[in-house]
Amino acid sequence: MTMPAPHLAQTVALLERTPAALDALLRGLPEGWTSTTEGGDSWSAFDVVGHLIHGERTDWMPRVRMILTFGDTKTFETFDRSGHEREVAGKSIEDLLDRFAAARAKSLDELRALNLRAEDLDRRGRHPTFGVVTLSQLLATWAVHDLTHLHQISRVMAHQYRDAVGPWHVFLGVLQCTGHSA
Amino acid sequence: MTMPAPHLAQTVALLERTPAALDALLRGLPEGWTSTTEGGDSWSAFDVVGHLIHGERTDWMPRVRMILTFGDTKTFETFDRSGHEREVAGKSIEDLLDRFAAARAKSLDELRALNLRAEDLDRRGRHPTFGVVTLSQLLATWAVHDLTHLHQISRVMAHQYRDAVGPWHVFLGVLQCTGHSA
Repeated sequence: MTMPAPHLAQTVALLERTPAALDALLRGLPEGWTSTTEGGDSWSAFDVVGHLIHGERTDWMPRVRMILTFGDTKTFETFDRSGHEREVAGKSIEDLLDRFAAARAKSLDELRALNLRAEDLDRRGRHPTFGVVTLSQLLATWAVHDLTHLHQISRVMAHQYRDAVGPWHVFLGVLQCTGHSA
Repeated sequence: MTMPAPHLAQTVALLERTPAALDALLRGLPEGWTSTTEGGDSWSAFDVVGHLIHGERTDWMPRVRMILTFGDTKTFETFDRSGHEREVAGKSIEDLLDRFAAARAKSLDELRALNLRAEDLDRRGRHPTFGVVTLSQLLATWAVHDLTHLHQISRVMAHQYRDAVGPWHVFLGVLQCTGHSA
């Protein structure tokens, strides 16, 4: 059973919980969990939190404002997937968690101040790859983007114990995940 | 880069954070997020928390004690994957989160009271499917089991917005996950 068409309040309820959930999971955790990756140029939990901060600054609310200001007459800026590198340099995971919480709170304050009505959710913007998208789709994507990175963090951390679990490997679903979020 | 052989403190650091992370994510969230499933007899976030409680009561510390008491001369009880149905009946997600936090705290108090030494981690037990396993593998599995269900919860919740995100579907890794934890 899937939820009916998403309501703004439902989306915001998730968005406002993500920083605290990541904080409870990651703050004070040994670096072996938070700084290690899945190999190559893959991301650690630390990198993912940096990416989430970068999204708050450059992606989500800026795109909401573009839809409300320009509709589908102006194309969104392309999101820089390496943009987090500037956010994370020289910082601790605790710094990043604080910055993510502050950036998300600011985003949601701005979103609430827009007093969006149900009919606003149908307003259209223009995505550089997809063409026309709606405000409703953008807000739903913001929430699922949080979940995709929670999914990734759990997978990256589990990878660190891939050998340690011995034969239980076959029963642990997260170790079968081939990584859908780079 | 994978962590070196897991240390007990590192494992416990994760185990003690999971209840608070799930609490921050799920408490007070609209039921559309927490009570919905991926269809069929799949689990909701609510069911997963029930399963985690059931594991605390019947799986992890009971198996630790069996290893320390009987070594590999006695086979672990098979874990009842439907056992959570009794845990969740008639309860709210908030009840379950409280119960999980209490059960986990009790487990970790018991684990700490054992004062395990490094050499204890090599002690052997007998798994009904795998045969000989070590205490170290059991403890690592306990941590990765938390992560596998955090991975599952993020996937189950994202599924509720599968249609709502429109064309962004292709960029959201969690929506590509075919479900490695039932």
